[in-house]
Amino acid sequence: MSARNQLDAPAAPLDPSAGRAALVRQDQLTKPRGALGRLEEIAVRLAAMQRRERPSVDQVHIAVFAADHGVAREGVSAYPQSVTVEMLRNFSRGGAAISVLAQELGAVLEVVDVGTAHDPGPLPHVIAHRAGAGTSNLSREAAMSASDQTTALEAGYAAVERARAAGAHLFVGGEMGIGNTTSATALASALLGLPAQDLAGPGTGLDTAGIARKTEVVRRALLLHAAHCADPREALRRLGGFEIVALAGAYLACAQQGLPVLIDGFVASAAALAAARYCPDACDWFIFGHESAEPGHARILRALDAQPLLRLGMRLGEGSGAAVAVPLLRLACALHGRMATFSEAGVSEGGA
Amino acid sequence: MSARNQLDAPAAPLDPSAGRAALVRQDQLTKPRGALGRLEEIAVRLAAMQRRERPSVDQVHIAVFAADHGVAREGVSAYPQSVTVEMLRNFSRGGAAISVLAQELGAVLEVVDVGTAHDPGPLPHVIAHRAGAGTSNLSREAAMSASDQTTALEAGYAAVERARAAGAHLFVGGEMGIGNTTSATALASALLGLPAQDLAGPGTGLDTAGIARKTEVVRRALLLHAAHCADPREALRRLGGFEIVALAGAYLACAQQGLPVLIDGFVASAAALAAARYCPDACDWFIFGHESAEPGHARILRALDAQPLLRLGMRLGEGSGAAVAVPLLRLACALHGRMATFSEAGVSEGGA
Repeated sequence: MSARNQLDAPAAPLDPSAGRAALVRQDQLTKPRGALGRLEEIAVRLAAMQRRERPSVDQVHIAVFAADHGVAREGVSAYPQSVTVEMLRNFSRGGAAISVLAQELGAVLEVVDVGTAHDPGPLPHVIAHRAGAGTSNLSREAAMSASDQTTALEAGYAAVERARAAGAHLFVGGEMGIGNTTSATALASALLGLPAQDLAGPGTGLDTAGIARKTEVVRRALLLHAAHCADPREALRRLGGFEIVALAGAYLACAQQGLPVLIDGFVASAAALAAARYCPDACDWFIFGHESAEPGHARILRALDAQPLLRLGMRLGEGSGAAVAVPLLRLACALHGRMATFSEAGVSEGGA
Repeated sequence: MSARNQLDAPAAPLDPSAGRAALVRQDQLTKPRGALGRLEEIAVRLAAMQRRERPSVDQVHIAVFAADHGVAREGVSAYPQSVTVEMLRNFSRGGAAISVLAQELGAVLEVVDVGTAHDPGPLPHVIAHRAGAGTSNLSREAAMSASDQTTALEAGYAAVERARAAGAHLFVGGEMGIGNTTSATALASALLGLPAQDLAGPGTGLDTAGIARKTEVVRRALLLHAAHCADPREALRRLGGFEIVALAGAYLACAQQGLPVLIDGFVASAAALAAARYCPDACDWFIFGHESAEPGHARILRALDAQPLLRLGMRLGEGSGAAVAVPLLRLACALHGRMATFSEAGVSEGGA
């Protein structure tokens, strides 16, 4: 099946009867009704996604997509473009934040090179699925061709194929790419119809002058492309990055194939927004892990009616904000599956 | 050493040089400075507490204190008083929320009966350290005598002794006691000098009429006792419960003996507030896990200048909100201890 055909498939339906069974069980557990707050909601949602009263997220698959951005030439990052490949090597050796988090969580971590500016050649634990040597400068032309976009979408679909083959209960997508908050800002601004200054932020650490420069670059990009962005696929092609397109493809694949997704921060959420514009029902499969310190994230979350589980001031990407939320999902499932019911425990129910 | 003498000991000092070393290390790790947000702050604080550049919270000790409250006779809970002992049996059998959480976290869980209304006799995994058969009705008289209070304080100190003997890196205190949000509301209102209606909330699930009744009960208790509550020990004696006194004792013991504490929700925070009024430096040892849905919690947190890590709408007690935050501390330590530095990884530092 081509990525074109795959994109057009509907999201898998949830199982409302499993969700209802989980809700009934929650109300029988030895606690006041609702006293576990969002952990109850998560357990019930996962039950409806996994089509079983007692869900589990033991097997977690993390895929980090890395790529470079032509727009980095506009001076929109606090870091040189060489850092994308340097971080790819750091992922490969297990030294990055997401490497440590994956190890702690016992999660599978794969890193996919979707198109760094310089091909690093074979690296241990890195999958090459390159759509090109970085994107074109989106402030001057479309970021990528339609065929390169298809390659990047396929990189996302392929990661989900591997996750499913490995028996994953949960998919986490991450990204790395110097300049990619500029791409995400432009993409989200276009999809939300908001001006650049409403979403542009410091990214990895720009100062005030840097944010002003980035805002101006996004403003120029929107002038050039926004009129052509009613189709989310076209918005992704013109304003996205290879890793952002791959994430959008992975999220659509998860929704179509019924694999729950834990969404990371600002850049990942811009990809999720594009996926949701393509297929609104895809959101049924999205759980949001962490609200980023990047100001544009709140705008995207509001548009998606999403409430992330955590707000820890993180702004790293790599899937790290989602990874940090994985234990909450696991604890929610454990509580849901293993607490005693009132009748099992001989505890009186409330109602005074 | 008597609980009286123990109470007067100062808090252990933090190690600022270990904290500084941890901060230097954080700024060398392969991420933008500050990009891990509060996880960085937690790692640095734990380093200063544990007197080492790379802290760890592998060994977690959870002590849940259970007791009954004379004020329950005023109809301030959605549950009958018998539930306290029923839940003690549920803890004993491993069916409660905190039982499941402790198991998932690989934490030691001990349950201490500090004084349920009816002595359940020996129960597996339950330690009897009873200060009496529940407290007196605090809306009509002092909740407990000075000597019963000493017994309850000693129950807290003894739990910390066991935690230290077991090599704990982190102490979590929990509570169970029908009526105890009324006691916590009265105690916190007295210590903060706020009227009952600013703090009273639904607890385990009161309706509007129930909250009004509870508010009136607390108002009466404050009229009776507030003038005598300038001394936090006296406030605890008049308005506390045995489990709340035990928690306050445990928190003081942790601070004096240099064991980091992860504080749970509203009731636990009322105990922490009393401990902090007794020994302000004790707060150096407190990390707050979860902001409860109970409205009074925000008032206490503001007074302690505390920002909990999580806000998941939980309102269960038992130490559950703190337990759910334990993985965040562990991930913070893992990231801090095991991420590569810029020089180790050959990654360029930012600064554009």
